[in-house]
Amino acid sequence: MVIVMRPDATRADVEAVAQTVGAAGGEAFVSRGVSRTIIGLVGDVDRFATLDLRGMSGVADVIRVSTPYKLVSRDHHPERSTVRVGGVPIGPRTVTLIAGPCAVETPEQTLAAARMARAAGATLLRGGAYKPRTSPYAFQGLGETGLRILADVRAETGLPVVTEVVDAHDVDLVASYADMLQIGTRNAQNFALLQAVGAAGKPVMLKRGMNATIEEWLMAAEYIAQRGNLDIVLCERGIRTFETATRNTLDISAVPVAQRLSHLPVIVDPSHSGGRRDLVLPLTRAALAVGADGVIIDVHPHPEQALCDGPQALVDRDLEELARVMAQFPPMLGKTAAADALVSA
Amino acid sequence: MVIVMRPDATRADVEAVAQTVGAAGGEAFVSRGVSRTIIGLVGDVDRFATLDLRGMSGVADVIRVSTPYKLVSRDHHPERSTVRVGGVPIGPRTVTLIAGPCAVETPEQTLAAARMARAAGATLLRGGAYKPRTSPYAFQGLGETGLRILADVRAETGLPVVTEVVDAHDVDLVASYADMLQIGTRNAQNFALLQAVGAAGKPVMLKRGMNATIEEWLMAAEYIAQRGNLDIVLCERGIRTFETATRNTLDISAVPVAQRLSHLPVIVDPSHSGGRRDLVLPLTRAALAVGADGVIIDVHPHPEQALCDGPQALVDRDLEELARVMAQFPPMLGKTAAADALVSA
Amino acid sequence: MVIVMRPDATRADVEAVAQTVGAAGGEAFVSRGVSRTIIGLVGDVDRFATLDLRGMSGVADVIRVSTPYKLVSRDHHPERSTVRVGGVPIGPRTVTLIAGPCAVETPEQTLAAARMARAAGATLLRGGAYKPRTSPYAFQGLGETGLRILADVRAETGLPVVTEVVDAHDVDLVASYADMLQIGTRNAQNFALLQAVGAAGKPVMLKRGMNATIEEWLMAAEYIAQRGNLDIVLCERGIRTFETATRNTLDISAVPVAQRLSHLPVIVDPSHSGGRRDLVLPLTRAALAVGADGVIIDVHPHPEQALCDGPQALVDRDLEELARVMAQFPPMLGKTAAADALVSA
Amino acid sequence: MVIVMRPDATRADVEAVAQTVGAAGGEAFVSRGVSRTIIGLVGDVDRFATLDLRGMSGVADVIRVSTPYKLVSRDHHPERSTVRVGGVPIGPRTVTLIAGPCAVETPEQTLAAARMARAAGATLLRGGAYKPRTSPYAFQGLGETGLRILADVRAETGLPVVTEVVDAHDVDLVASYADMLQIGTRNAQNFALLQAVGAAGKPVMLKRGMNATIEEWLMAAEYIAQRGNLDIVLCERGIRTFETATRNTLDISAVPVAQRLSHLPVIVDPSHSGGRRDLVLPLTRAALAVGADGVIIDVHPHPEQALCDGPQALVDRDLEELARVMAQFPPMLGKTAAADALVSA
Repeated sequence: MVIVMRPDATRADVEAVAQTVGAAGGEAFVSRGVSRTIIGLVGDVDRFATLDLRGMSGVADVIRVSTPYKLVSRDHHPERSTVRVGGVPIGPRTVTLIAGPCAVETPEQTLAAARMARAAGATLLRGGAYKPRTSPYAFQGLGETGLRILADVRAETGLPVVTEVVDAHDVDLVASYADMLQIGTRNAQNFALLQAVGAAGKPVMLKRGMNATIEEWLMAAEYIAQRGNLDIVLCERGIRTFETATRNTLDISAVPVAQRLSHLPVIVDPSHSGGRRDLVLPLTRAALAVGADGVIIDVHPHPEQALCDGPQALVDRDLEELARVMAQFPPMLGKTAAADALVSA
Repeated sequence: MVIVMRPDATRADVEAVAQTVGAAGGEAFVSRGVSRTIIGLVGDVDRFATLDLRGMSGVADVIRVSTPYKLVSRDHHPERSTVRVGGVPIGPRTVTLIAGPCAVETPEQTLAAARMARAAGATLLRGGAYKPRTSPYAFQGLGETGLRILADVRAETGLPVVTEVVDAHDVDLVASYADMLQIGTRNAQNFALLQAVGAAGKPVMLKRGMNATIEEWLMAAEYIAQRGNLDIVLCERGIRTFETATRNTLDISAVPVAQRLSHLPVIVDPSHSGGRRDLVLPLTRAALAVGADGVIIDVHPHPEQALCDGPQALVDRDLEELARVMAQFPPMLGKTAAADALVSA
Repeated sequence: MVIVMRPDATRADVEAVAQTVGAAGGEAFVSRGVSRTIIGLVGDVDRFATLDLRGMSGVADVIRVSTPYKLVSRDHHPERSTVRVGGVPIGPRTVTLIAGPCAVETPEQTLAAARMARAAGATLLRGGAYKPRTSPYAFQGLGETGLRILADVRAETGLPVVTEVVDAHDVDLVASYADMLQIGTRNAQNFALLQAVGAAGKPVMLKRGMNATIEEWLMAAEYIAQRGNLDIVLCERGIRTFETATRNTLDISAVPVAQRLSHLPVIVDPSHSGGRRDLVLPLTRAALAVGADGVIIDVHPHPEQALCDGPQALVDRDLEELARVMAQFPPMLGKTAAADALVSA
Repeated sequence: MVIVMRPDATRADVEAVAQTVGAAGGEAFVSRGVSRTIIGLVGDVDRFATLDLRGMSGVADVIRVSTPYKLVSRDHHPERSTVRVGGVPIGPRTVTLIAGPCAVETPEQTLAAARMARAAGATLLRGGAYKPRTSPYAFQGLGETGLRILADVRAETGLPVVTEVVDAHDVDLVASYADMLQIGTRNAQNFALLQAVGAAGKPVMLKRGMNATIEEWLMAAEYIAQRGNLDIVLCERGIRTFETATRNTLDISAVPVAQRLSHLPVIVDPSHSGGRRDLVLPLTRAALAVGADGVIIDVHPHPEQALCDGPQALVDRDLEELARVMAQFPPMLGKTAAADALVSA
């Protein structure tokens, strides 16, 4: 942490800061410049943050310089990690396609979507049984009935299941059916839920909050990691900006930035970020090209009848192109499509 | 809902849209302009939203025009509401000061802060026993011990208690101590929690999500209202923007806008929006002047030792000025300070 | 400037940074912490900014700590300044009302609006002869004809004129008619224009760019000041955020923040920030309450016929309330309405 | 344009709106729903926009539905356009690499950078002689001296020159040296400048304003087109958001969105959006994969001595990888690298 003093700060002001830091168990290094004095603090930053240093006489600014996450940081774990979900790898050597319906509606629809997913090269099935919806009047998901449908479709297709959990209460139930627990963008700072999935013994896909900085996203991952679970996959899904042509603004730069800061795998959700079918394939190509470790995509056999986000689901005629992208891009990045990785394993 | 057709849309395209809407139980009114045709939809908008209308041939845009909230809307409830918290009114005729420590740390600190609050004219005590913190390494609150301290201080000072709940699980416990339940900005779309407080039988203060539009904020209130609880107070606390000089950007316009759209009372949190002590009094004045029904403010007897947000807490020397503002502004807006309203009652 | 080294930075890395800084004429102070080393730089920050310090081995982050503006900074000019426009003060002891039509359309409309302005307590007349419009098909202003109308209305009413200039080319012409030159939000980083008005010998009202940080706004003022003109009034007019209920989000906190950082007067434009008539009076009250040194407001005798921004202009029935606000608020803030200041002078 | 009436609007309110629209030369189509009435307006939208329809009794909302740009719209020009710059195509069939130094500093540095550019496959040379800088104390460019250096380097290397113009005054001068005029992000709504380059008879590269919606960006292009110049290339270069890990947030989705709305070519600037060298190659790959018609990239022989944006310039060791990307990606998108297009032409 660095304290920047005002130009008119006195020697006594500087000493008072140093003393306060010392009383909190830290050490202060003073650099006197021509127009300003800077004080570098060494010690327990979280403790310093609660001190009212900014309120002290002569202080102009207080700047934190160390990263506040540790377990998920690449500083102390330089090798990028691979997370395995029901045997399927997500990590630096592969590109994993996760696909399926936004919401589980019926066994038929879910099975049809799973077959579409597999045809396109997916090795994991997505599908929501619990849907966080902005409107209380919108379809909220089938709950445990939906989880059972997912388990049946997994048995039928062999695809491990990724599904969202929205309440700390439901974590054990959802974990008993799912291969991977998904935390959605609206729960990205629901700390009780993060801690619960951290203790659930299943891999977690953590979507970025639509208003979260990359640092806050990594702090959310740290909440999960702190409970002993490092099988976390980060998922960029767009942030909220002033632009309204797309539902959210896909922050494509966040992929390489997060991969440099953290050892965790990073994937992209091109369906929810754009919210438009015509953007899914272009954004999928961009995600793979920038170096994402995978993508998660909505598909639906009859999107015009979908109970949730039909307008963004890929349909049959898109799958061939998706499969082509999954075949062409990974090799160019020195990666293997996860589907091929499994075949050759 | 309005469908805007593309300039090159055919008559068949228009008919197909009308038919799809009809099949979903709605009615379509077609307005043919020189360059574009517009179709007005009448019926169940939430049902239409799931149709893939945007994906249909000839469709350029789909625009929702009705408000998606109903119970909290002023359309059908033109009188603005007053919510009572332990007898203290929050509503159109009063200005209510809620004050206290950001976090409950010790009985002494909480009592001292409550006395500061009362001295400044507060009629409700704020204080957090459960703290949602971005870092898992930061102080997370005293939990039930904190709730007991708050209850003791209420007994001592007579101030009803407003306190945050962060997990649906804890709602009953917190409600057994609190006079008003607070939903924080990070839980503004934690729908399980919103539903739980909706069923808890206590008034609720709903902070705006730092990334929530005013419409989404009202939808969150609708989640609570739908469970039968209309004792909801909306609290503007700043939104996330590109500006970094303040922690968040207080959206002062949101106060009159929300008051026009909803019958619920609207208050402002000048402490958390700015995150700086020197802004609390100016922003309090602005909040009262714009017409807010109250403010919620951090005070602390020893902010330099605070475990949470010390740098933004008002201290003793600020209280006189706060009391002066609370005395001067409400009459100018045709309101009464809640403290005076209670005295004269 | 502060350089934060990575945890794995070597002693040689630290020395290389110190050497590079030394070669650029600066000095480096090293603070070695337990997990990180911090290097404080002293010298010409603008020179350091061009060095590729971030690209050097072992460097984690580069943080600028000094303010990049000097002439407009309060650091070296602690007294807040008063700017005089045709004899009318704008500054810390007064609250100035500037009012008039968004665009000059006809002599009759401009004179009628000026009389409305004066009736409400305005001491300066606003009115646009050159209008920057998002659409090339929208009304672009009357140009010099408009300037002549403004001059005639000034002669008739005695109100000095504030008017916008949009092209460096036109500065001399506009300055020959105007008492104060206005730089609009879209030109907030049109540096050629800023320099031209800096040399024009007339006071300048500098609107904040809708995407400008407070620091960038002050840097834009520095461009003007650097040409020898310190008669600058800053005008907060809303920033662009994700919220769409208002045209822009009025950043009310920016007023006290800018007043602390700079000695220049700060006023608010409640008409353009909200873009809605029903918000103008509430936002005016908020602006005065937070401590603004004035407000600039659109009025129009017949807004339904206005060629520009009619929906936000105050009309006759609003003026009494505006006059009441201008009478009540300034005294509460220890200020005088500029109209009264002139009378008593 | 669509008028949404309030639920309590009377028949008289609806008729009053229809009458006002009729008086302005338009026609009104009324759709009466169960809870709301919607009025579709047909006629001159720009004229309607100035009416105070939102202020009329019973009106809840006014929604514009037609696109406000015409000449650059794809509605009436479905074929995507190719712009030629000194013979080099930018358009749907090619991927064009534009590279060079951010700022022209010396003849040697510019020639060295141009050779780096050509080695990587560039067919156009970028380089700034006029630099818009946030700080008045930063290097502002060499002006005409810089233009002469660019002309000399063009003679030496054969690369046509793209260079920025920041003042309407300078357009003729810059156009006399340049093959393509660049409008920077800070001038994206400098309408005088847009009109001047529209009349200059040279192709224009129009960077998106960092705070501009895609619609506003296209409106800016319309300003240029309206002066008779349709040789416009749109350049996405990142927008301003709350994320601070990157200088701006590259809005990768804007590329396909703009290509659908407009027939103009769309390229990407991966150097300025991220502001970090380590992101340039990943973002270049993303840009090509999403379907951009080109990229514009900073290169510098000695970035540690650069007077402007050294930290983001590619250096020698990056060029091979850039050349590889330019060779691999275009064919996958059914495009040809512009360098190859020229060779085979």
